Amino acid sequence: MSVKARLRTIVNGTDTRAGRAFDWAIIVLICYAIATLTYETVPALSENARQFLWISEVVITALFTLEYGVRCYLAERKRDYLFSFYGIIDFVAVLPFYLALFLGTEVVVLRAFRAFRLLRIFQLLKLFRYTRASERLLSALSECKEEFILFFFMTLILLFISAAGIYYFEHPVQPAVFSSIPHSLWWAVVTLTTVGYGDVYPITLGGRIFTFIILLIGLGVVAAPAGLIASALSRIPETEDD
Amino acid sequence: MSVKARLRTIVNGTDTRAGRAFDWAIIVLICYAIATLTYETVPALSENARQFLWISEVVITALFTLEYGVRCYLAERKRDYLFSFYGIIDFVAVLPFYLALFLGTEVVVLRAFRAFRLLRIFQLLKLFRYTRASERLLSALSECKEEFILFFFMTLILLFISAAGIYYFEHPVQPAVFSSIPHSLWWAVVTLTTVGYGDVYPITLGGRIFTFIILLIGLGVVAAPAGLIASALSRIPETEDD
Amino acid sequence: MSVKARLRTIVNGTDTRAGRAFDWAIIVLICYAIATLTYETVPALSENARQFLWISEVVITALFTLEYGVRCYLAERKRDYLFSFYGIIDFVAVLPFYLALFLGTEVVVLRAFRAFRLLRIFQLLKLFRYTRASERLLSALSECKEEFILFFFMTLILLFISAAGIYYFEHPVQPAVFSSIPHSLWWAVVTLTTVGYGDVYPITLGGRIFTFIILLIGLGVVAAPAGLIASALSRIPETEDD
Amino acid sequence: MSVKARLRTIVNGTDTRAGRAFDWAIIVLICYAIATLTYETVPALSENARQFLWISEVVITALFTLEYGVRCYLAERKRDYLFSFYGIIDFVAVLPFYLALFLGTEVVVLRAFRAFRLLRIFQLLKLFRYTRASERLLSALSECKEEFILFFFMTLILLFISAAGIYYFEHPVQPAVFSSIPHSLWWAVVTLTTVGYGDVYPITLGGRIFTFIILLIGLGVVAAPAGLIASALSRIPETEDD
Repeated sequence: MSVKARLRTIVNGTDTRAGRAFDWAIIVLICYAIATLTYETVPALSENARQFLWISEVVITALFTLEYGVRCYLAERKRDYLFSFYGIIDFVAVLPFYLALFLGTEVVVLRAFRAFRLLRIFQLLKLFRYTRASERLLSALSECKEEFILFFFMTLILLFISAAGIYYFEHPVQPAVFSSIPHSLWWAVVTLTTVGYGDVYPITLGGRIFTFIILLIGLGVVAAPAGLIASALSRIPETEDD
Repeated sequence: MSVKARLRTIVNGTDTRAGRAFDWAIIVLICYAIATLTYETVPALSENARQFLWISEVVITALFTLEYGVRCYLAERKRDYLFSFYGIIDFVAVLPFYLALFLGTEVVVLRAFRAFRLLRIFQLLKLFRYTRASERLLSALSECKEEFILFFFMTLILLFISAAGIYYFEHPVQPAVFSSIPHSLWWAVVTLTTVGYGDVYPITLGGRIFTFIILLIGLGVVAAPAGLIASALSRIPETEDD
Repeated sequence: MSVKARLRTIVNGTDTRAGRAFDWAIIVLICYAIATLTYETVPALSENARQFLWISEVVITALFTLEYGVRCYLAERKRDYLFSFYGIIDFVAVLPFYLALFLGTEVVVLRAFRAFRLLRIFQLLKLFRYTRASERLLSALSECKEEFILFFFMTLILLFISAAGIYYFEHPVQPAVFSSIPHSLWWAVVTLTTVGYGDVYPITLGGRIFTFIILLIGLGVVAAPAGLIASALSRIPETEDD
Repeated sequence: MSVKARLRTIVNGTDTRAGRAFDWAIIVLICYAIATLTYETVPALSENARQFLWISEVVITALFTLEYGVRCYLAERKRDYLFSFYGIIDFVAVLPFYLALFLGTEVVVLRAFRAFRLLRIFQLLKLFRYTRASERLLSALSECKEEFILFFFMTLILLFISAAGIYYFEHPVQPAVFSSIPHSLWWAVVTLTTVGYGDVYPITLGGRIFTFIILLIGLGVVAAPAGLIASALSRIPETEDD
């Protein structure tokens, strides 16, 4: 067995102990990368903490770059990997560091640099690659794909009707809060998802009756997809037992 | 094949490529009409934007009028189409523009004109006409129609009991907020749907215990229809596979 | 057929046209009684409105008393009806009026009179008597009775753990808001039902992490009964088709 | 039958009348202990109330200690009971009282003493031991254990993405509210669970659109576990009937 074949067993497979250990190491590394990214945004960090974060950053990027290189080397068709979904994610995960390094962002483009950093959120998607359980969810989701699309469009339509209706009722009384239909859409989102922050709410009788009617219809539309996922998932284990 | 028959295949059918293209063109046109209607309510628009909206308005109305005419022409019994649900919607969608045009509303009846405009929301219902996926939802809904009516009445009864109860507990302490049972109904709607804006809430011990009991019962009543839709929908694909 | 037997067919049965008409008449009367009760609490009513409400009150009570008498007369065992669930409700529905009349509450015991009035909410329970659809819901509920009791106790335990935990975290920082465990229970109710008025919320790091953990566990516990009702109801129609 | 064997039937079994009575007595005692613990936190208690609570405390601890001793005596392998889940709970339930007694906490370590007291919340877990209905729920939960773990990780990932995203959009405008990603996590928790206290909410257009997208995806992820419990539970009774 050549070195390349052995490496393939470790990096791509989950059958051997080494293969599983590699997958878990990558998951731990991603979690650590996310933890440092989160910690970095805390205001007024000490000099020591910043230095520690910088070293972490270098080590994480080095390891991710190494992984990217190995995956490239192991891929039978390099182009297929490079332009695959995960190939792009792996690339995007290391890009911000090198961009920040070569463009010298420490002083001038600091804010833009931060925005690039947030691209690293895509590293989280890697987690899905390393867990088999997600495959079952994906098949459950694909089973009721059409219903999701239908409910998505119904949600959009309902949001617009809600926004237009509440604008009609509340705009004359609260012109600052419900200043236009696009602004009223925020109220529609917050209300139909039942989040209800309380920053915008109707005060007229018409607006309140309208809210009641919209909620009666809307709760079913917005909450149904969660029920669909649950019932699709609860059917899949049964068929897998066969 | 006559011109009328060919037109019928395009306008009413979805089997040919031209038929599907026509349907999608109408959907795009409705979405565009909604987008301009939304944009129009933004306060302090520039002169250019207004002119652009006016031209859009004319073009949209012209196309909708054309579609209305063609559908009229193609219908075997003109009266059936004119007084059908979609016939009325198609008519109402173009009505506000002509009303505004012929009654000269630019200065005097501006506000009423806006109210007429909102009738165009009904255009959204057209979207349902142009998607087949909605048929499955409709059959799922009709399957558990009785349950919906039952839960609807239970919701109304529960809302009234909630409003009367909270009025009894909170009126003596918060006479301005819970001024009457009709006013307390707003609290009942916001609480039982779990929106919870925070504009009205009980502060007495009795009112809070009452809220807890009502929520224990009410969450099931208000949330159950969403579960019913989900389970009805998840049963339908199975029967369609046969 | 005797008068008594014919009356029984009308009052107790739903097979004849007259029986259904009687049931619907009672439902309309109850709805009207509720509407007047609601309207009565509106502050600053005109003299005309009050007079109208008073006449309505007399007519409603007369009709309900008549119904109560007829039911008494028709019952085979008078005692069984008088002490049955609906017998008590029928009695309680007419009681407040006579109490108010004979005790002369117009001036002195006005407030207590209002409290008596709210007893009329029990009239709403009559609605369940007059709808057959509710039987199916009752059988669905009785099917998963044990689960409801289990979830009810789990909700109570979870509420107490939430209240005690948040009291521990938030009391030192917000002593006025989270003054004791009983007060913290209000926060627990509002949070676990996801109503979230915003009158009480944690501000410490510990309290917020605790809230997150409690919500992760609690959402399933509080929302599950709604799902149970839905799935129990969606199974019943199938068995009835046999 | 020896005394030890008879005691075992009462303490561990639920088949005899005495066994069930013992279980119910323990449940009542736990509920009473919780009630006194709750009452104790009410500020400004009278001297009588405090004395009553102190006596209750002594009696409860004595009875729990007795139960702990009996269980120890009855266990075939003492070590197995002492280090079992419920053995530890039984020990922890009586510990705070003795710690408070022997360390003399009345004046100095009063606050720490209170913290110890809250450990008694674990007594609530005993309730699960004394109800058989919970066994069915546990089997339902274990049936969809993998899905719960998957949704738990998806919730964590979604919370982080939400927090990072909203930080990016809202930090420049509301630097005090969305000061860092860890702070933004609180917003993510409150929003995705649809609690929506209203203490933190986005005000920028980008943040609001981001909230809408995150909610569309997140409602399904956060609400699905409740549906899973419901459908797993509704399947179990059927299989038990066989």
